[in-house]
Amino acid sequence: MGVNSNRVEDFSSHRINTESVMPGMEIHTVCLSPKKTTLQKLKQRLSEIFFPDDPLYRFKNQTWRKKLLLGLQFLFPIFQWAPEYRLKLLRSDIISGLTIASLAIPQGISYAKLANLPPIVGLYSSFVPPLIYAILGSSSHLGVGPVSIASLIMGSMLSETVSPRDEPIRYLKLAFTATFFAGLFQASLGLLRLGFVIDFLSKATLVGFMSGAAVIVSLQQLKGLLGISHFTSKMQFIPVMSSVFKHRDEASGIINDWEKWSWQTIVMGFSFLVFMLTTRHISMKRAKLFWVSAAAPLTSVILSTLLVFCLRSKTHNISFIGHLPKGLNPPSANMLYFSGPDLELAIKTGIVTGILALTEGISVGRTFAALKNYQVDGNKEMMAIGFMNMAGSCSSCFVTTGSFSRSAVNYNAGAQTAVSNIVMATAVLVTLLFLMPLFYYTPNVILGAIIISAVIGLIDYQAAYCLWKVDKLDFLACLCSFFGVLFISVPLGLGIAVGVSVFKILLHVTRPNSLIMGNIKGTQIYHSLSRYKEASRVPSFLILAIESPIYFANSTYLQERVLRWIREEDEWIKANDGSPLKCIILDMTAVTAIDTSGIDLLCELRKMLEKRSLKARLSPNESHLALVLTNPVGSVTEKLHQSKMLDSFGLNGIYLAVGEAVADISALWKSQPDFPEDCNETGQCRETKR
Amino acid sequence: MGVNSNRVEDFSSHRINTESVMPGMEIHTVCLSPKKTTLQKLKQRLSEIFFPDDPLYRFKNQTWRKKLLLGLQFLFPIFQWAPEYRLKLLRSDIISGLTIASLAIPQGISYAKLANLPPIVGLYSSFVPPLIYAILGSSSHLGVGPVSIASLIMGSMLSETVSPRDEPIRYLKLAFTATFFAGLFQASLGLLRLGFVIDFLSKATLVGFMSGAAVIVSLQQLKGLLGISHFTSKMQFIPVMSSVFKHRDEASGIINDWEKWSWQTIVMGFSFLVFMLTTRHISMKRAKLFWVSAAAPLTSVILSTLLVFCLRSKTHNISFIGHLPKGLNPPSANMLYFSGPDLELAIKTGIVTGILALTEGISVGRTFAALKNYQVDGNKEMMAIGFMNMAGSCSSCFVTTGSFSRSAVNYNAGAQTAVSNIVMATAVLVTLLFLMPLFYYTPNVILGAIIISAVIGLIDYQAAYCLWKVDKLDFLACLCSFFGVLFISVPLGLGIAVGVSVFKILLHVTRPNSLIMGNIKGTQIYHSLSRYKEASRVPSFLILAIESPIYFANSTYLQERVLRWIREEDEWIKANDGSPLKCIILDMTAVTAIDTSGIDLLCELRKMLEKRSLKARLSPNESHLALVLTNPVGSVTEKLHQSKMLDSFGLNGIYLAVGEAVADISALWKSQPDFPEDCNETGQCRETKR
Repeated sequence: MGVNSNRVEDFSSHRINTESVMPGMEIHTVCLSPKKTTLQKLKQRLSEIFFPDDPLYRFKNQTWRKKLLLGLQFLFPIFQWAPEYRLKLLRSDIISGLTIASLAIPQGISYAKLANLPPIVGLYSSFVPPLIYAILGSSSHLGVGPVSIASLIMGSMLSETVSPRDEPIRYLKLAFTATFFAGLFQASLGLLRLGFVIDFLSKATLVGFMSGAAVIVSLQQLKGLLGISHFTSKMQFIPVMSSVFKHRDEASGIINDWEKWSWQTIVMGFSFLVFMLTTRHISMKRAKLFWVSAAAPLTSVILSTLLVFCLRSKTHNISFIGHLPKGLNPPSANMLYFSGPDLELAIKTGIVTGILALTEGISVGRTFAALKNYQVDGNKEMMAIGFMNMAGSCSSCFVTTGSFSRSAVNYNAGAQTAVSNIVMATAVLVTLLFLMPLFYYTPNVILGAIIISAVIGLIDYQAAYCLWKVDKLDFLACLCSFFGVLFISVPLGLGIAVGVSVFKILLHVTRPNSLIMGNIKGTQIYHSLSRYKEASRVPSFLILAIESPIYFANSTYLQERVLRWIREEDEWIKANDGSPLKCIILDMTAVTAIDTSGIDLLCELRKMLEKRSLKARLSPNESHLALVLTNPVGSVTEKLHQSKMLDSFGLNGIYLAVGEAVADISALWKSQPDFPEDCNETGQCRETKR
Repeated sequence: MGVNSNRVEDFSSHRINTESVMPGMEIHTVCLSPKKTTLQKLKQRLSEIFFPDDPLYRFKNQTWRKKLLLGLQFLFPIFQWAPEYRLKLLRSDIISGLTIASLAIPQGISYAKLANLPPIVGLYSSFVPPLIYAILGSSSHLGVGPVSIASLIMGSMLSETVSPRDEPIRYLKLAFTATFFAGLFQASLGLLRLGFVIDFLSKATLVGFMSGAAVIVSLQQLKGLLGISHFTSKMQFIPVMSSVFKHRDEASGIINDWEKWSWQTIVMGFSFLVFMLTTRHISMKRAKLFWVSAAAPLTSVILSTLLVFCLRSKTHNISFIGHLPKGLNPPSANMLYFSGPDLELAIKTGIVTGILALTEGISVGRTFAALKNYQVDGNKEMMAIGFMNMAGSCSSCFVTTGSFSRSAVNYNAGAQTAVSNIVMATAVLVTLLFLMPLFYYTPNVILGAIIISAVIGLIDYQAAYCLWKVDKLDFLACLCSFFGVLFISVPLGLGIAVGVSVFKILLHVTRPNSLIMGNIKGTQIYHSLSRYKEASRVPSFLILAIESPIYFANSTYLQERVLRWIREEDEWIKANDGSPLKCIILDMTAVTAIDTSGIDLLCELRKMLEKRSLKARLSPNESHLALVLTNPVGSVTEKLHQSKMLDSFGLNGIYLAVGEAVADISALWKSQPDFPEDCNETGQCRETKR
């Protein structure tokens, strides 16, 4: 029977094994990947880490002139779409631009208040950054400007150290410096192609975090909505709630309960809040009516301003914005500082807000790009957002990014290109130059209502329910970040949630799944015995699949677990009068990596099973055991080779597929019925016989 | 052609697909694991995390009397071996016990000096802990006592805050309290079955750490060897080296170079060091001569003491131990404290030394157990070591554990049971009661020489070279811990190394391998195209294997990578005039877990490829693309089911094996040549036709 059984390739020739295996069946060799030097491997590894999308593939095989053009387009995506821009696109861009401007102006003012900054800074931030983004950004639908989460976190982190009321200039300087560092951090992540850092904020973490932040932001707005004058600057649930119900009048030192709530403010605030939530509900039901909720904030601002203006003699209790300076963004580069005791705080705040702003901006960009089926390059977007913030910090802007609400409106209003951002910036420009006095009587309470109606959508209980259903540990991460943000602090809450997510990965690695496989009759398919009723045990074999890389973190566990599988199989055989175990097959298909501890484990396991074989000669109750590996992946084969393990396993130790191993070993047993011990100490003994 | 094609099981019945597939070929269903409630799953998960070795399996199906006995044996392994103890074992145990005693006495004194403790504490620590371990421990070969690394770290961490020279009582109290907390931490790890925590100190980390610590310890002994009187108490390379070459005389304030080195001390120290290193070399060459190196320290102590005693009038420069109190361990429970400013330091030191002591003890225990082919239960050993240290801290002992050098000698001397530890303790008892005055003239320099000859074996450059060869990142972790310990500090160095090891796991998860598979002719085996020359592309199919769980940390990367594979395949097809791509098969065999982000990725990928199909109808250059999954493992199938993805993939979306998918889909294309588009939007379209 002329059958090839050539398994462990010795990198030059195939050995031919002429023993009688199943007729017509060819046994295949496990071979190594093509040889590479350490340098080549390092290069490949690094390019896989930093350039997984092969960003320069467009440059291949091009003339230098074309390459120059492509390079320009790569750096400034505006050169990509601007030459193809047609006037008929302009109409939709103008409409969508004006629509988001009507949203951006009240939101800008509100979010600036959220960050404890002067309201005008919010408008400045809706002017310069969108222009920069239009040049550098690669998304056509991103609506750029300040966002609630980043504003909130900047406000809370900075005001824990510096009071915005007592030291406004120092606070402003801190805010601009933090914005600069946020931009620097973002741009560096993009330049160094470390975009994957933000991937560690998993969806579960973000759902919990956003909900927690939304709850805190909403509760903080009770200050405005209830017309309370003294309020905590802290961010945690408990101080905020106690501020709402008990506030100390600093002048008299008396603790008041809800005596100082102003009913006029409450009535006005809640009516407009209900109005905006209703419009939001309408727009969510019907995507076509998106403009209803988009126009609601501006409408509310206009109506409430008129109301306060008309009744200004009777409503002393309602506080309003007051004087706002006219004119364009003043330069603020001279307010940045790069030394001094506040620098650490500015850098820390910059990094935390920067990373959160990035997460929102990138995920929003990707969402809308997926809807229109184009791709957004994460690293390039990071650079765009980063440079936009660095430029912003020099022109009196605070942290900005792509905002979800504005982008959704932009998309629904039919924006075609980044021109809609330019239109929005122009509208803000007009406002800054001419319309500022109109905001004099805008009540603060309306800003609180705008913020609440904007952040309420961040509480995504459906997503949380889905997490609970699909993955309990993801849900735990979500809960951790929710309660962490609510009760401890924003950076710590985020840290805990990232910790839980990483812990989940490590737990999976530390306690990997392993299972017994059986053969599905009539096929060469081997599958989990417990899952497939069609699968049946192969007598004398124990086929184990290990579903994880073998690392230092799990090698001890795996050793214990494999020995337990063997013990339990022995018990099962005893109970069912099965044929005694002779061979353990470890299916390595899912063992995607191995380290030195993992190699030691295999080595030791093999020795232990061999020793068991030796013992078995003395007491015939325990059967002899061979250890065989099947289908090791490329990198694992290579490491086994480098550590000489491959040689020690030898010809009979490694097969390409479970089916081939079972066929070959069974055939061997049949051909050598008298020497069952010899074929068990895998490899060498059989080789020496030839 | 009566062929079954029943794939997506709807958990009750098999659907029969009567379309013409390959004759005689059966297509199998992917099915879910047996249903379990959340509670059952949690229970299984927890038992897998905490009881992977099923420690109570011996208790199953036993009478209550037997269970009681087994329980007693489980808690106190002495009841397991003591009833079977025979007198003929006693001879070997006495020999090995006396041999390790001859090693333990000089080592005890030396290591106590290393921890900046009075020498007598080292002897106390070689008396009580071995007795406790003999009752609780499950290893028969572990030689228990103080060890170099733990002593060194305790000494360095404590003396950074408290000077052992200026405040000896406070320092002693701190040391005992730290020992107590080390024991408490160790015992809790064992009780809570969190033994896997020590697995995170990978072999690579330990190799680097041990080498770094050995270098530092050896350099610190230069104080004794060169006879320098004033020496830094710091642990880093630079202060130690500058102490050696420049030391400030505190009385006169003058900085001296090597003027104060004492040549008598140097000559004596280096002669005995050379003697011990030679004996060590001899024993390493011939395992039978183990007693040569085992007896060397005691011989050196005796010889050097005699030498100093005889020449005591001429050798004023050689410092010696001086008076040591006679008598047994005094109780020290009253010296422990559980409040006060030093508590934090004591707990921190306890945890760091505890974890390092555990690592050494457990790995030594496992090594010798493997040699004799019995198993050591890690969690039980932790409890034994923990209780031994807690008891030790109440009887004037500092941190002890299983020592490698002593265990090796014990093993080689033929120890059979833990009785050898009792014999050793008895020998130490005799020493403590009667022989203490003999150590009066023992020179300090000899202790330094003993320490150096003991730690020099920890510098394992061969293991480091092996790491470099097999795994570059493991080698990096090794380097980090080596230089971290040498130049920064012990806990930080360890922390960095653990960080690198964890980063390696995360990197593997963040940037997983993916590859194109091809069919090996004549088989149903599909394998990497780049690795197997026998494997060939299947026309119209792109078969991708993803070698990692799909998590939040890699879902973005995988999306980009898969799209790039498709792009590159398209280019390859264009260049080679191949048949256009119609179907992407994702082989999920190695995708051992998935989370919500991973499910989103699959969903989005499918939508994108569908959209590409829609586009393709307009421009016929791009072909239609279907996405098919093969062989998802149990937990992944379950999550796909819970998130309703399984339904959306439908009948034609999931197969059990790549071969079956290729056969079934090809057959489908052949049977529907006119509607190539419809079968590409996987699933639904075809189902609706029925």
